[in-house]
Amino acid sequence: MWTRTEQVGGSNGHAPTAGMLTYLGLYAQQHRGQEAAGIAGSDGRVVRVHTGTGLVPDVLTESVVRDYDKFATHGAIGHTRYSTAGGSLACNAQPFLESYVGGQVAIAHNGNLVNADALRKDFERRGHLFHTTSDTECVIHLLASPEQQSSVDPVAATLRHLQGAFSLLLLFKDRIEAARDPWGWRPLVLGRIPGEHDAPGDAPGGAWVVASETVALDVVGATFVREVEPGEIVTLSHTIPGGIASRRFAPAAMPAAHCVFEHVYFAHPASKVFGQNVQVTRERLGERLAAESPVQADFVVPMPDSGRSAAVGYARASGIQLREAIVPNRYVGRTFIRPTQAQRQAAVRLKLNVVGDIVRGKRLIIVDDSIVRGTTTKAKIEQIRQAGASEIHLRISCPPIRHPCFFGVDFATRDQLIAAGKTVEQVRAFLGVDSLAYLSLEGLLSCMDRAPGQYCTACFSGDYRIDVEHPTTDEVVTPQQRIFEAR
Amino acid sequence: MWTRTEQVGGSNGHAPTAGMLTYLGLYAQQHRGQEAAGIAGSDGRVVRVHTGTGLVPDVLTESVVRDYDKFATHGAIGHTRYSTAGGSLACNAQPFLESYVGGQVAIAHNGNLVNADALRKDFERRGHLFHTTSDTECVIHLLASPEQQSSVDPVAATLRHLQGAFSLLLLFKDRIEAARDPWGWRPLVLGRIPGEHDAPGDAPGGAWVVASETVALDVVGATFVREVEPGEIVTLSHTIPGGIASRRFAPAAMPAAHCVFEHVYFAHPASKVFGQNVQVTRERLGERLAAESPVQADFVVPMPDSGRSAAVGYARASGIQLREAIVPNRYVGRTFIRPTQAQRQAAVRLKLNVVGDIVRGKRLIIVDDSIVRGTTTKAKIEQIRQAGASEIHLRISCPPIRHPCFFGVDFATRDQLIAAGKTVEQVRAFLGVDSLAYLSLEGLLSCMDRAPGQYCTACFSGDYRIDVEHPTTDEVVTPQQRIFEAR
Amino acid sequence: MWTRTEQVGGSNGHAPTAGMLTYLGLYAQQHRGQEAAGIAGSDGRVVRVHTGTGLVPDVLTESVVRDYDKFATHGAIGHTRYSTAGGSLACNAQPFLESYVGGQVAIAHNGNLVNADALRKDFERRGHLFHTTSDTECVIHLLASPEQQSSVDPVAATLRHLQGAFSLLLLFKDRIEAARDPWGWRPLVLGRIPGEHDAPGDAPGGAWVVASETVALDVVGATFVREVEPGEIVTLSHTIPGGIASRRFAPAAMPAAHCVFEHVYFAHPASKVFGQNVQVTRERLGERLAAESPVQADFVVPMPDSGRSAAVGYARASGIQLREAIVPNRYVGRTFIRPTQAQRQAAVRLKLNVVGDIVRGKRLIIVDDSIVRGTTTKAKIEQIRQAGASEIHLRISCPPIRHPCFFGVDFATRDQLIAAGKTVEQVRAFLGVDSLAYLSLEGLLSCMDRAPGQYCTACFSGDYRIDVEHPTTDEVVTPQQRIFEAR
Amino acid sequence: MWTRTEQVGGSNGHAPTAGMLTYLGLYAQQHRGQEAAGIAGSDGRVVRVHTGTGLVPDVLTESVVRDYDKFATHGAIGHTRYSTAGGSLACNAQPFLESYVGGQVAIAHNGNLVNADALRKDFERRGHLFHTTSDTECVIHLLASPEQQSSVDPVAATLRHLQGAFSLLLLFKDRIEAARDPWGWRPLVLGRIPGEHDAPGDAPGGAWVVASETVALDVVGATFVREVEPGEIVTLSHTIPGGIASRRFAPAAMPAAHCVFEHVYFAHPASKVFGQNVQVTRERLGERLAAESPVQADFVVPMPDSGRSAAVGYARASGIQLREAIVPNRYVGRTFIRPTQAQRQAAVRLKLNVVGDIVRGKRLIIVDDSIVRGTTTKAKIEQIRQAGASEIHLRISCPPIRHPCFFGVDFATRDQLIAAGKTVEQVRAFLGVDSLAYLSLEGLLSCMDRAPGQYCTACFSGDYRIDVEHPTTDEVVTPQQRIFEAR
Repeated sequence: MWTRTEQVGGSNGHAPTAGMLTYLGLYAQQHRGQEAAGIAGSDGRVVRVHTGTGLVPDVLTESVVRDYDKFATHGAIGHTRYSTAGGSLACNAQPFLESYVGGQVAIAHNGNLVNADALRKDFERRGHLFHTTSDTECVIHLLASPEQQSSVDPVAATLRHLQGAFSLLLLFKDRIEAARDPWGWRPLVLGRIPGEHDAPGDAPGGAWVVASETVALDVVGATFVREVEPGEIVTLSHTIPGGIASRRFAPAAMPAAHCVFEHVYFAHPASKVFGQNVQVTRERLGERLAAESPVQADFVVPMPDSGRSAAVGYARASGIQLREAIVPNRYVGRTFIRPTQAQRQAAVRLKLNVVGDIVRGKRLIIVDDSIVRGTTTKAKIEQIRQAGASEIHLRISCPPIRHPCFFGVDFATRDQLIAAGKTVEQVRAFLGVDSLAYLSLEGLLSCMDRAPGQYCTACFSGDYRIDVEHPTTDEVVTPQQRIFEAR
Repeated sequence: MWTRTEQVGGSNGHAPTAGMLTYLGLYAQQHRGQEAAGIAGSDGRVVRVHTGTGLVPDVLTESVVRDYDKFATHGAIGHTRYSTAGGSLACNAQPFLESYVGGQVAIAHNGNLVNADALRKDFERRGHLFHTTSDTECVIHLLASPEQQSSVDPVAATLRHLQGAFSLLLLFKDRIEAARDPWGWRPLVLGRIPGEHDAPGDAPGGAWVVASETVALDVVGATFVREVEPGEIVTLSHTIPGGIASRRFAPAAMPAAHCVFEHVYFAHPASKVFGQNVQVTRERLGERLAAESPVQADFVVPMPDSGRSAAVGYARASGIQLREAIVPNRYVGRTFIRPTQAQRQAAVRLKLNVVGDIVRGKRLIIVDDSIVRGTTTKAKIEQIRQAGASEIHLRISCPPIRHPCFFGVDFATRDQLIAAGKTVEQVRAFLGVDSLAYLSLEGLLSCMDRAPGQYCTACFSGDYRIDVEHPTTDEVVTPQQRIFEAR
Repeated sequence: MWTRTEQVGGSNGHAPTAGMLTYLGLYAQQHRGQEAAGIAGSDGRVVRVHTGTGLVPDVLTESVVRDYDKFATHGAIGHTRYSTAGGSLACNAQPFLESYVGGQVAIAHNGNLVNADALRKDFERRGHLFHTTSDTECVIHLLASPEQQSSVDPVAATLRHLQGAFSLLLLFKDRIEAARDPWGWRPLVLGRIPGEHDAPGDAPGGAWVVASETVALDVVGATFVREVEPGEIVTLSHTIPGGIASRRFAPAAMPAAHCVFEHVYFAHPASKVFGQNVQVTRERLGERLAAESPVQADFVVPMPDSGRSAAVGYARASGIQLREAIVPNRYVGRTFIRPTQAQRQAAVRLKLNVVGDIVRGKRLIIVDDSIVRGTTTKAKIEQIRQAGASEIHLRISCPPIRHPCFFGVDFATRDQLIAAGKTVEQVRAFLGVDSLAYLSLEGLLSCMDRAPGQYCTACFSGDYRIDVEHPTTDEVVTPQQRIFEAR
Repeated sequence: MWTRTEQVGGSNGHAPTAGMLTYLGLYAQQHRGQEAAGIAGSDGRVVRVHTGTGLVPDVLTESVVRDYDKFATHGAIGHTRYSTAGGSLACNAQPFLESYVGGQVAIAHNGNLVNADALRKDFERRGHLFHTTSDTECVIHLLASPEQQSSVDPVAATLRHLQGAFSLLLLFKDRIEAARDPWGWRPLVLGRIPGEHDAPGDAPGGAWVVASETVALDVVGATFVREVEPGEIVTLSHTIPGGIASRRFAPAAMPAAHCVFEHVYFAHPASKVFGQNVQVTRERLGERLAAESPVQADFVVPMPDSGRSAAVGYARASGIQLREAIVPNRYVGRTFIRPTQAQRQAAVRLKLNVVGDIVRGKRLIIVDDSIVRGTTTKAKIEQIRQAGASEIHLRISCPPIRHPCFFGVDFATRDQLIAAGKTVEQVRAFLGVDSLAYLSLEGLLSCMDRAPGQYCTACFSGDYRIDVEHPTTDEVVTPQQRIFEAR
């Protein structure tokens, strides 16, 4: 199961507003998951949870937010979720809340574990019950097990059993534990909301917050402190001096495996991810794309809203005029009623309107960020063609996606990826464009600030950093290091 | 946690209607629990569940029922729930559905387990997670454990670990297992819906159904076959010859411990419970009450609707005219808005209207079935007094409730029972009636068809059949028999 | 269009609770209409309205009630509605609120106007718009017309144009006008909620309230003052001395035409209607029925809940034992899902459970209040027969209903009345009972406290008090008196 | 009351899909009104209506759309509404449906009538009732009046009494009448959906549709035929040959008074309005703005989404780089929960995210389309400043709005317009920008294709085409022509 998920959490030293912070942070990160949402909070004695399917405001209604704003005096975590059809069961909405021998724990997980099935089978054999079909549930089973409970640091011991991508938040009644896998696949950042007298040397007021993206920090008025390090556990609690503590459960993998697709598509343009701003990066991708694949045309037209940043870069580098010739309908949401067969085309036209007076008889360079299955792109291209464009040149600001992702991006199986097993020419013919060009992998990596080897590019290259086909259930301190050494 | 719960289940040999049967059966048994409801069904491959808080039609909406009516081709079980405040969490709505090493299982439980806490602690020590605060969850943990899984009959082995009252339905993908505790605390009946060609010697069509009460059988057009025996497991599946099989997990306790309060209050008047009709029994209670505690008065007035049957019996035996002088408002439900303090009295008056023209200046015998906390009764009595009754003689068709129930009836703790630690005279003074009489325990038992020793009367007598204060987690074949022998 | 409607209104001299009073009063009168509900209120400057389809709590939700409780400082009126299919449009939910040259007015109407169509046609010819299909709308058109507006008393002039049954409440920004037609077809009562210092000679505190039934007065803690007289207008306003004033728009018709069916079926048992208590009256009807139509049997069985009062009277007079052998399911409401054809019978069985152990092999006298179409009764009788009754004798506590009502009771057209054009023997055969007897018209009227001529018995006798076939639109002071004189 | 409203209507010659066409058309025009929505349809015998507050999918739910798709075989009209607080009553949601002497009529109105109050007073004096507070209601009162009904063409006679802006749709049971005021203030276009065999000379299949904007035609697959002419009535009905007919109720005003603000802000970028494409026009406005008010800066930054088109033009003309430095949150809708005072700022930050890495230390030219009250703009500017911009130069692609609109755009009263009575320098100081420039009126008009005199520019210039202060209720054929002659 491949999921796109997101989480945010905060602990507040002196005001009972962790519930409100979490609500705001989830809203700011709604782009990371629209299928389900949830919040868990603690008042220092009990942990409670509220989850549901739908967008943040569908689930976190006014009464729920008011309730958690009052209740969650000692911390709260939240989650938004997107998943493939198979995993969209209501029971999979996070955070999960469970009771175990150590009390209550709620969990929110961004990423994907490759050894979840193996762990689950082990636990079932030992008599454990499973309540969801999510990979995340096995994290709590690990934590609850006598093996980990007898460890000096049950949380660290638990995390060492996990293989794959995880930015994790655990909410206990008295603290939040925020951890990131040793490869740093998914982002996780730490921020600070200043207290009223938050001066050096003072006792801390204010609040510590963690979130997937810095855009959530911006919204709650927090300043970016640093990333949670790969292999690190950060504890937030106002029962510890300064409200924060750090330890490692594993050494950071060398090199890291940051998901480059966060920059291509996933993250918010205003966020800083893996040390660089997303919007700036996307403009660079467009510039590089113009350099790699120039073409004579009248206008550069962004595919809204995903292709806009790269289109701005493309237009700037190519010197070809940018025209906003495709206009999205902001009101068409999930509630749209499928018309009968005869009116199916209307549904497509409702989502996008092409400005015929601009495109008629013109040669267009359409810029978009990526192509996954290709069906939506094909329908849009047809609509632009019908509006009268004389030539359509499609430019994509990343390489062809040819391999499934096992680390948290919802890429379909190989069969469903339009570029898997097809040449670029075959894709071009399928889409019905006059020319098609993708950004090269080198081009993509050249726009990144960190060393090329620090990014996971498996969906483009097939080069998986860990063995996804032979997952184990062992504690992975050693195997992990073996992998490190092997590189 | 003391819960009033109810369940129903059915397996249908040749038509995909187990979902509809369960819906109808739950509706017919709505009186047994109004807090939450749920259904689980199987199509032979997967088990699914839908639960929620509220009445049956709130939870089992049209689309849900239509869905399960199509889906649940291989069996379905359902549950309605009532519990005290502490246990009213949404996560406690049954059936519970869990995955374990043997696959999926859903459970619906009527009764209460006295060793649930002890079992839970054991399991938590072994690393198990708990998702609810219900006693029922430990049944599935037992079932999933290697100890039971390695047994020849894991279900039977599981049940032998349970102490207390349980009428249980387990839905596996291919069958329903229906079991009743060795004492027969709670009712559980087996019925049959005839098939089109349901002749002796033929292969079975039709459907087998189990339910708490015969009224559910009536509604689905099933004929009463027999009670599920104390200590028996009945399997319903159209994969076994005849669609039904029976085995024992323990010998029946001798004597049984049928809950006599089912006849006083809990069960539906049209049901046959523990071998006798409830309505007829309640009339008998009223007749006996008239004989034990006669009083000069103008009218016998039933407290609607709970006291009506006994009032009919009382009037018949005493020769005093029955008058329907108290009229309930059928429309006042849970959605009533609390008026401000000044209008609080209005809320009481909305629920019951007293016919002033009947009661004014008259001596009344008010007949009700039971008094638990006494506050509601006190408010009603005040209202009757204000309507002008000159004398109010209250007659209750069971003995004073002085002891908590640990077997599935939601009696408050001892402190909250008005009769606990009070004389009848003290209760009379509290309620403000001119005279108060309860039916004697002997009188109550004299109206029952089975031998007096076959009934649990702990709430009246404090005579608990099993050791509720020292629960164990062991398999209870031997201890159980010891208890039998001890008597 | 024949509607069953009900209304309540109140004006409060010193506390902003008219909204809450109206809510409570509607709840108490929910039995008079379950199709739609609504409230209108005034804060002295503006009149607002809220209506919707469904029961009172469906429409008057917590936020609506809280809102009107604050807002409606100067008076509020409410309405519950029941109508035939044709008239069940949402736009017909009352109160209606309109603006006219005199400002705003809201109206709630109980009854039915026989000249509504004629008035409507007149107004349409004059260019008026109609927003509903209700007879009530023409009352406001009359009021707004220059002819009435130029009158000294526009409300009185308006009412003189109305022919038929009306208990009307008009809410203006500064007052409520409550009026009743000259024949007094429908009930309308005046009550008083005492103020804190409500002594003789003092300025009035407290509140005046009007309602269809005294049961609404009971619920809001008001004492019954008197009926609103036929032909009278009562004004409630805290801008007039004492808070109340009275005038006549027409002399009372002699004799009156009180709807006798209010006592048979419509009104609440705890209400006093036309000067006598409903429950007491119904018991009398049963006694008289026993005297008129005795039969040898084992038990008298009430058809719940409609036949219970008469059954108590029948049993008392006949000396035959009363048994509660039919038990209604309190939870089956409008939300019940129609099962497929095969399970249709289940729906009937869900509504009523017959206690087989009581009825099996017995001769029963089933007592009910009335039969309209007969189909529901037929289905219930079949169910009782299937439960094993050896003889079923049906006794009805009113005469056969053979004529439609034009004065506010939703009796179907003549074709749909089972008794219209059929002998009692034909009805008996249709229902499948062993014997059938109705109460005679003389018997019915002998149980009424007022002179027999004071009641409208048109549905039984066809004797309509006014000419329903030739309605006029003239002011009816003279014609009315002609009708009086003619009698 | 100033309202922004929008409508769409269609009549279908051979398939029962007018309901679906209307639904799609409303969705496509959702940008014209988000407060309420509604649909009315006819099956040839009855007209029905469904309205409600909220967005199109909130009101036109799946069951409503399916219902009207089946029902509205003979035509349907729809409406979306936006209004100021005072007029946001639910009763004002259009279409209105009324009955009158001629039968039923539903109405949907885009625009604003300046003589509505005068007409209403006249009608109230004549005894008419008003159900809404909308100016639109008086159109139906006119139509229903004997004066108009006795005319040869009641609809035309009605329209001649209206003063102000109106694009109107009237749905009768057998036809739609679509009319546009003589000045052509608001757009109204006619389109055609081709039938299967829609050849010249054939009997017509397909459907005629009218809508405010061509974008609605695009969505339903209709081709643009022509504008409905100022002063024209177009009748759509499949009972007339060809399905369409045209007549005039008044000569077109010379010159016209097309609302220029449609191009600045109101209309959809993909629409063709008053003969020219909106997006192209907006780019031109930006180009002209760059020419009129150049400034040295690092980047041109669009204020999303309203300023994007003009920003593209500004960047192109100025040669300064376009950067997408402000990113809107697509998920923040009306359901956002107001945080407590302390978190108010978070709400602003949730709506827009500024990309700090782009703006920090940079000189920005922010381009937006218009400023009304100025408060929202001020808050956004503060946010950009906090993100580190060194200079902020605000450029607005229309002149200062200094006068209220009486013709259908929701401009606040004069007091609430930030530019009314203020110099540009004063507005600049209020907003806190380094420089502020508006496009000149000449500049604006120079971008329009029609002659400058053909546009209404009253909100900028105060030059109202008709006497808004002395409205009359007379038939306006002559006065109208007088006004024409006067020019």
